[in-house]
Amino acid sequence: MRALTVTPSRAGTAEVRELPDPRPAEGELLVEGLAVGVCGTDREIVSGVYGWAPPGRDHLVLGHESLGRVRSAPEGGGFAVGDLVVGVVRRPDPEPCGACARGEFDMCRNGRYTERGIKQLDGYGSQLWTVEPGYAVRLDPRLEHVGVLMEPATIVAKAWEQIERIGARAWFAPERVLVTGAGPIGLLAALLGVQRGLEVHVLDRVTGGPKPEVVKALGAEYHTAGVAEVAGRVQPDVVIEATGVSGVVFEATAETASYGIVCLTGVSSAGRRISVDIGAANREIVLENDVVVGSVNANLRHYALAADALAGADLDWLERLITRRVPLERFAEALTARPDDIKVVLTLT
Amino acid sequence: MRALTVTPSRAGTAEVRELPDPRPAEGELLVEGLAVGVCGTDREIVSGVYGWAPPGRDHLVLGHESLGRVRSAPEGGGFAVGDLVVGVVRRPDPEPCGACARGEFDMCRNGRYTERGIKQLDGYGSQLWTVEPGYAVRLDPRLEHVGVLMEPATIVAKAWEQIERIGARAWFAPERVLVTGAGPIGLLAALLGVQRGLEVHVLDRVTGGPKPEVVKALGAEYHTAGVAEVAGRVQPDVVIEATGVSGVVFEATAETASYGIVCLTGVSSAGRRISVDIGAANREIVLENDVVVGSVNANLRHYALAADALAGADLDWLERLITRRVPLERFAEALTARPDDIKVVLTLT
Repeated sequence: MRALTVTPSRAGTAEVRELPDPRPAEGELLVEGLAVGVCGTDREIVSGVYGWAPPGRDHLVLGHESLGRVRSAPEGGGFAVGDLVVGVVRRPDPEPCGACARGEFDMCRNGRYTERGIKQLDGYGSQLWTVEPGYAVRLDPRLEHVGVLMEPATIVAKAWEQIERIGARAWFAPERVLVTGAGPIGLLAALLGVQRGLEVHVLDRVTGGPKPEVVKALGAEYHTAGVAEVAGRVQPDVVIEATGVSGVVFEATAETASYGIVCLTGVSSAGRRISVDIGAANREIVLENDVVVGSVNANLRHYALAADALAGADLDWLERLITRRVPLERFAEALTARPDDIKVVLTLT
Repeated sequence: MRALTVTPSRAGTAEVRELPDPRPAEGELLVEGLAVGVCGTDREIVSGVYGWAPPGRDHLVLGHESLGRVRSAPEGGGFAVGDLVVGVVRRPDPEPCGACARGEFDMCRNGRYTERGIKQLDGYGSQLWTVEPGYAVRLDPRLEHVGVLMEPATIVAKAWEQIERIGARAWFAPERVLVTGAGPIGLLAALLGVQRGLEVHVLDRVTGGPKPEVVKALGAEYHTAGVAEVAGRVQPDVVIEATGVSGVVFEATAETASYGIVCLTGVSSAGRRISVDIGAANREIVLENDVVVGSVNANLRHYALAADALAGADLDWLERLITRRVPLERFAEALTARPDDIKVVLTLT
């Protein structure tokens, strides 16, 4: 089978190579890979600054935003040949921390988790892959063309769950949400906000391309002004930050309605200092009982929530998030970001 | 009766004056004031930068950290003559927001609350005061000499409740807490940490005075190194920030164990910019699922929790937090901070 591999920590090593077909272990599913989504983490791995190969070898099969169709499944395991499935990214360590022991491996405390396509486990960027049935999630068959959006949808399903659990510490009746960044995470966060009946605002710096129309098609409002200006006007009860850009992150945390909750989801780079009024931000956060919460990864509960969210969405709208579909052999094109990209997908069949 | 009054928004107007004895309305308690604590908010009001007089007049009776003894109480109202009581600070607006309507006036959304001694209601800095029984809290009679610490204790009781409710969004088993600032809020936060069985670390810049010994007497560790250095070593699961100093606030939010919760309680001033690496802080908060939560004020639930916390504490240790007791007539001395102060109290009898 063909697979997209990379040698972690070495830039420029991504290649499509022929690997032996995987053989499912006892109880596992064998899955025909349909597509993998490409995201910033993949680009970090390909550029040599992130990622770990499985122990004992150099290369890692890339890809953690999966979609496939079951080719073989054990009897009585809950899956049938032909089922549309995605594989979960993270696995707990065999000696789990307290969170991992409870299935909350997204909240892992000791960092000893592994991740398919990222950390010590081969990813889903191959024409065939295997998966334990406990880490496979069946999708509504209607999601065949958009199910590759599941993994980013799990990230926002967790973010929304965090917001709602933290909001529930006292009376919480949010009305307005501001999403910063109209990439796949931001747009899916906006979708889940609309599904909750909220007034949704999305802020991005681009004025052209598909993003403004995609936001409007959701019934949300698209903004290109600065965060402080938009947030000052909207007075959001919830902010979901999906850019990771320092100035945006800081302004997003400093401008909310009272009892505001800001969920940070963008993984930014360290090393660049900016001048900010921490005292003013602290004063607002204290006097308004505000919260800033970081959210990363997702557990099985969030996969179930994400599957429901996608199944309840307009399929045409979801398809508009996939702005390029690139065949596996032309992976280099997919890994190069273009201004009008939302989600770029590698097709595997 | 004698009372400490101030004309809000005009610096230098604090004075002790003779006012008519208050007459309790139907159902109210009449209370003999024993003491009021002095805090940063009082100093802000006296310096003319905060505070609002009751509608229709110029002066406000100062004092919100109360302690008194019931002089008269209505039959069947749950209070008896001689009871040791404190009065609650905040009152909801007669047309309450959703939070205030549920008794969570500490989480008021529309800002229309009032506050005794701060915002539109006379405070407790007088030899007699009245209070609605629903906003009076009876204290263990043994707390006669330290009950004036109740109001700051309610602030930390709420802070701990916020931390625990937010922690409960996933598996949470904190072991170590770092408190920044060894003032009354920081030391009472440390007390409640010890009462929870946690390993408690307190950081302050002073090396002399009573603070180091007071911390050690609690069984906690006292630190004077920088926040990043101490937090990097301790790896706190919980940080309670009680300085409001920009650099401390920023470092406190950026240095925790995974799934860390930082509770900000210090009300800082705006207007001074510092250069910081927001990207690095954002990256840590996201990848560790960290939370920063602001906490201010307290509702009746927190008064009950604080009363329990004080009743369960060592009385000698609590007395050490009150480093000066100043008679009402010499209020100016009490309002001037000294380096070795922890809590300064005005005595009213």
